[in-house]
This record gives sequence, structure tokens and C-alpha cells, in this order.
Amino acid sequence: MSRFEPNLRIPGPTALPPSVREAGSRQMINHRGPEFAALLGRIGDGMKPYFGTHGDVAILTCAGTGGLEAAVVNTLSPGDRVLGISIGAFGDRFAGIAEAYGAQVERMTAEWGWAAEPNEVRERLAAGGGDYRAVLVTHNETSTGVMNPVADLAAAIRETAPDALILVDTVSSLGAVPFEMDAWGCDVVVTGSQKAWMAAPGLAMVAASDRAWAAMETATMPRYYLDLRRHRAQLAKGETPWTPAVAVAFQVDEGLRLMAEETPAGVFARHEVCAAATQAGLEALGFRLFADPNHRSKTVTAAWIPDELDWKVVNGELKRRDLVLAGGQGKLAGKVFRVGHLGMVRLEDILGAIGTIEEVLAEQGRLAQPGAGVAAAERAAIEVEGGHQAAAAVLR
Amino acid sequence: MSRFEPNLRIPGPTALPPSVREAGSRQMINHRGPEFAALLGRIGDGMKPYFGTHGDVAILTCAGTGGLEAAVVNTLSPGDRVLGISIGAFGDRFAGIAEAYGAQVERMTAEWGWAAEPNEVRERLAAGGGDYRAVLVTHNETSTGVMNPVADLAAAIRETAPDALILVDTVSSLGAVPFEMDAWGCDVVVTGSQKAWMAAPGLAMVAASDRAWAAMETATMPRYYLDLRRHRAQLAKGETPWTPAVAVAFQVDEGLRLMAEETPAGVFARHEVCAAATQAGLEALGFRLFADPNHRSKTVTAAWIPDELDWKVVNGELKRRDLVLAGGQGKLAGKVFRVGHLGMVRLEDILGAIGTIEEVLAEQGRLAQPGAGVAAAERAAIEVEGGHQAAAAVLR
Repeated sequence: MSRFEPNLRIPGPTALPPSVREAGSRQMINHRGPEFAALLGRIGDGMKPYFGTHGDVAILTCAGTGGLEAAVVNTLSPGDRVLGISIGAFGDRFAGIAEAYGAQVERMTAEWGWAAEPNEVRERLAAGGGDYRAVLVTHNETSTGVMNPVADLAAAIRETAPDALILVDTVSSLGAVPFEMDAWGCDVVVTGSQKAWMAAPGLAMVAASDRAWAAMETATMPRYYLDLRRHRAQLAKGETPWTPAVAVAFQVDEGLRLMAEETPAGVFARHEVCAAATQAGLEALGFRLFADPNHRSKTVTAAWIPDELDWKVVNGELKRRDLVLAGGQGKLAGKVFRVGHLGMVRLEDILGAIGTIEEVLAEQGRLAQPGAGVAAAERAAIEVEGGHQAAAAVLR
Repeated sequence: MSRFEPNLRIPGPTALPPSVREAGSRQMINHRGPEFAALLGRIGDGMKPYFGTHGDVAILTCAGTGGLEAAVVNTLSPGDRVLGISIGAFGDRFAGIAEAYGAQVERMTAEWGWAAEPNEVRERLAAGGGDYRAVLVTHNETSTGVMNPVADLAAAIRETAPDALILVDTVSSLGAVPFEMDAWGCDVVVTGSQKAWMAAPGLAMVAASDRAWAAMETATMPRYYLDLRRHRAQLAKGETPWTPAVAVAFQVDEGLRLMAEETPAGVFARHEVCAAATQAGLEALGFRLFADPNHRSKTVTAAWIPDELDWKVVNGELKRRDLVLAGGQGKLAGKVFRVGHLGMVRLEDILGAIGTIEEVLAEQGRLAQPGAGVAAAERAAIEVEGGHQAAAAVLR
């Protein structure tokens, strides 16, 4: 463990604000009493605006992957025809879950680094006859740093496969960027406590449309622990069916309070500023970003490791300076590194990270112009902030 | 929330010791880094003596119910013949999970309040031809306060159905009482962080025998999130397959450190003392205990609510005094109350609880002899402690 607090720049678990850490240290309470019922109610109500839904939000004790499994097993039956749109490791995982439970999954795979194209999805669904029971979509692909245009993808799906359920993985995006589940016509949406919500891992939050709740009545994939209908039934009593991760719930509640204080618009703007600064800073340092520039993620950035760079040495030096980055996942292991900029992140954390990378590269004799990275990051941040101020002025 | 720390006498979540609370407030770390790998290793190694196993212990992010589901779906196939031995709500749940995944479950149900009888199990298995794929057993039935004689039950099963896998729910017992998984021939054993381990809920710990690991290679029930083979593969790298409940892992690690300091024998003796004091105290206050005296649980006690007692009024008064008890579960709702005495519990907490119940009953004019409850609890504790000291003296 480091003597000082590290700059934890991985795409989750994200660092905890002081008051969220304190919430994690609270004494246990009866999870079948009025205090927990009030807490569960606050979390559900607090989450709804970020989901963009008027429906119930179920609070499951599991990782995001468990939440994705809940989306699949509650709404589908073995043999169901499913289109799994994958743009990276998490899209592959989502499809893999549906396959493990016997869905007939057709995979539509974009080259890693690219987003899914609404027109291609439209064509694929039309060519397939449109009779899909569900389409699996990743909002933010954490492995590649690409954010899919879910509103456009959902519109394309609704147009060509009107009866398909749209199941969306927003584990590493919801709460950091605007999302409108009801308006866009998404059916099940899944997020995780350790991402934008600034809490420890352990809870997945799952919202479902009326159509999805209706589908659960006839879906036959086996389920028990992740049964959303049991959750909904208990939610009405202010409880969860099984003992919930109470301490994580304390933290999510406090994280939501901090987010409300900042306002959702403020939270979203902060993520935009930090994403722009990270991406401009890394590019100015000579890194080639992995993601298509039109669909770069607002929560995580992946960059190629140049062939001539010994990443182990560089990353060791970064760790010694308390900067913690993430490596590549799946087939990108050893080929890219990733910088998380979601949850508890300020421009200062990004400037510190870019500056630290810059300093290490300069020390290693790998950099001609020290200072360019941080300068570019600052300029990008000022530009985004200016845009927001201009927008706010117009609205005034 | 109370101004003072409540006496949380429910059978989980159990109260957290101060240093465990502090552990819950730690900053997040990379769950794919060396610090977490060391933590995961410590938890696994620290748990093994309590399981009584030399095998791996998988750490799953879920409630105990998720751990029970993992035991079922990893080792069984749809259509498998299973004997579900149930002595209460949690035994029913275990059987229900196996049924939800398509096992052909025959239920062997004891009257609530009674333990399963090894001879009856032997007869039932022999009458059934012995060709069961698995037998489901609850060690401690939290709903009734009965502890099953698992060593004897396992011996009976091994004798009459040698090929059956023995899956054991020890969610609310492991860590509080001796258990010898390997020696007794149990195949999958499941516990939860919020019980004897003095941590918040969110982690289930699951150990499997070589036979169970082999069964997982051919078992066909669908699974993904709870796939134990994925956990074992990642465990070798010091990781979990999905993002784990890091803060709860911090707490379990600290809880295990406290338990090691006390020694397992000390922990078990403390639970015996507290159980004896609770049970003697409640009986001296005129409550009829729910469980068969020969198989009373060492971790939770259920007592009948007398017909003439308005429990809502009494319980409201207890809550006002910061004493939190649990109600009845399932068909016992409104008929019994339950006192948890596991995890962070000292004789002092039990004497305080018995004394508080006594005082409220006296205030309500329901008690002829105030003082009898606490006196009986103290006598019972002294007797058990004396037995332990005598045993220790013999060993010396």
C-alpha cells in the first residue's frame, strides 16, 4: 500500500469521496427494518433520473456481470433468437451469458475501437427477417474506450425489429453521461455501484420497461438469485429478497447525495471536461488513442502502447508515483493501457495523471517537448468548459 | 437511526467490530493488482481451517442465497435426482433453487423446530434406491434456531448413497462452530460474510471437494456469473472473474484477523457461552423455545411469542431501548421472535438483551420475578465456561 492516496485512474472500482468512505464504515442495521427501507427508496428514486425512467430500479447484490445475467435470464427463454452487438470484451461477455443460458445468439461484431453503426444494425436486422426476441447492446465498452450511440441504435432496432427487447449494458456509463431509457425505448438497463456512483463494488442496479416486466412472466430461462420479479415484489415492502450488501448501499446513497448536490448537469459536464483533457493530453504526448474519434468514451480512454516503449518499466515508474492505470483486456492485454475518468474525478486528477506520465516519459528520454501534454489537456478542458458556459448563457 | 449504538441481535447482518468498520472505509484499490491478490489469498487461507478443508475457497460477490445457487448449478444437471432435506425456510429455499434449475427434487421435511434424524435419512435414501445425485443439507436453520448434526447426517448419506454429492448450507454457522468438511465428506459448503465473519453482507465463500470439482466438468445446469470453475481459474492468478465487493473483502480479512487472534477454539467457546446464556435467559423469562432442546443452534435462538403477549408493543419498547431482534420468517411470521448470537457477540451483549427484555416485561406487568432471566443466563454461561475450563485442564 502506498503511503499517500493513489490517483486511481482505472475504470472501476473508482476512488471513493471522503463522505462515501465514511458511509462504508457505518454499523450494520436490520435489512428488514424501516431504516433500510428508507435507504432503498432513496437509492431507487435517486437513480431514476440517471436511467431516464419512471419504472422501478432493482438493487441486486452482485457485480455488473451479474446484472447483465439478470437482464438476460429474466426476459428470455432457451432457443430465443438474439442479436448480440459486440464492440469489445464486454459485448462478447453479454453475448456469452445469453449463450450459456441457451439463447440462439447471432453475433454482430464491430472491429475493436469502433462503435456499432445504426445503419448496419438496421440492415442486419432487416436481413435477418426482424424476428429477434432481443438485441444486446453495450453503451460504454470499457475494454476499448468506445461509447455506442445508444439512442440511434435503439431507434434503428425499434424500426426494423419492433418486438425485440433492447437489453443495454450501461455498467460503466450510467450516471456519468445523459441516458434516457424510457424515451429511447430501452427495455433493461444495468449499471454497477463501483463506476460513476463513486461507491465500492457489490451492487448492480437494474431497471426494466413495462414490456420487459411483461416478458418476465413468460420467459423460461432458469433463475432464482437474480430473479427480478422477486426483487420487485420485495421492493414494494422496502426490502430485497436476499440479504443485500448493506454497506455498499450506504455508500451508493451517499454518492447519489453528492451527485444531487452537484446536479446531474454538473456531473455530466465534469465527465466531459475530464474525458476531453485525458484524450487531448495523451495525444499530445504522442499516444495513438484506440477509439474512433467520433465515439470516444466519456468515462475511459484506451491508448496504444507504442512498440518501442517498454510499458512494464513505464508503468512501474507510474505506480511508484501513485498513479494507477489499467492494462488491456482480453486480446488487448499488453497492447493498450487504459485511463479511467469516471466517478470521483476532477480536472486536477487528470492534469496530475497526464503530468506524471509526461514526467516519466521525459525522464526515460522518450519525450522531446515536456509540458505539451498538460498544456493540451488544459486547452481541451477550457474549450469544453467554454462550450458549456456558452450553452448555459444561451439558455439564460 | 438511534443516538447510541444498538444491540443488533438479529441473525445477520451481525454488528461490526470497530476495526472492521474502519476496514470498510478504506479507499478502493485495483482489484487486478498485487494488493488485492494478497488479500484474496489471506481470506482463502484464513477460511480453510473453519471449513475444515485443504481445497480452494472461492469468494463470490453475492448473498448466501447466491452461494447456495452456485453449489447447485455448478454440480448438477437438469433432471438429476436430489434429496432436499429441509428443517425450515432455508432448507425449503435450497430445494427451491434446485427445482428452479430443473432438478428432480424429493423433499424430506422435518417438522419445524426439529433437526433431521440420521436414521430417517438413511432409511429414506435406502428406500429410494440410493441413486441420488445430491443431497441438500442445512447446517444451521436460521428460521427455526435448529442446528443439524451434519457429521452424522453426512455419515448416513455416505453409507446409503455413496455417490451422492453432499451440498451444505453453513451460511449462518461456519466460523461460529467447529466444522470438518473434508473429514465428514461434504462436497460443497457455503457461508456468508455477514454472519460469523463479522463483516458486512456482500460476499459468499464456497469450498468444494475434489469430487465436486470433478462433477462441475460434466454438470449441465446453465451458469455464468456463479460459475465456480471461472472463479477457481482466476483464483490461481489472485483475482476473481468479475469485480468483487472489495470493501467487504477488506472487512472479512480484518474479521478473520480478529478471529485468529482469539483462536478458533476461543471463538467457538464464546458462541457456546452466548447461546447457552440466551436460551437459559429466555426460558427463565417464561418463553418457550422453538427448537428441540437436543439441537438448539449455537448462533440463533427462536422463541414462541405467547398468545397473551402483544409483541408489537413489546418489540416497540425493545427498539426504543436500542435492542433489535428479528421476527419470524415464512410461516413463523408473527409467531416467534429470534435472537442472533453470532459474530461480534459477547456475554455482556446477551445479558444486556435478556435484561432489557426482562425490564420491558416487568414494566408491562407481565413478569412476576424480575431478575430471574439475567440470573439464569449468568448461571448457564458460568456452567459452559466451567466445562471449557475443565476440558482445558484435562488437556493440559
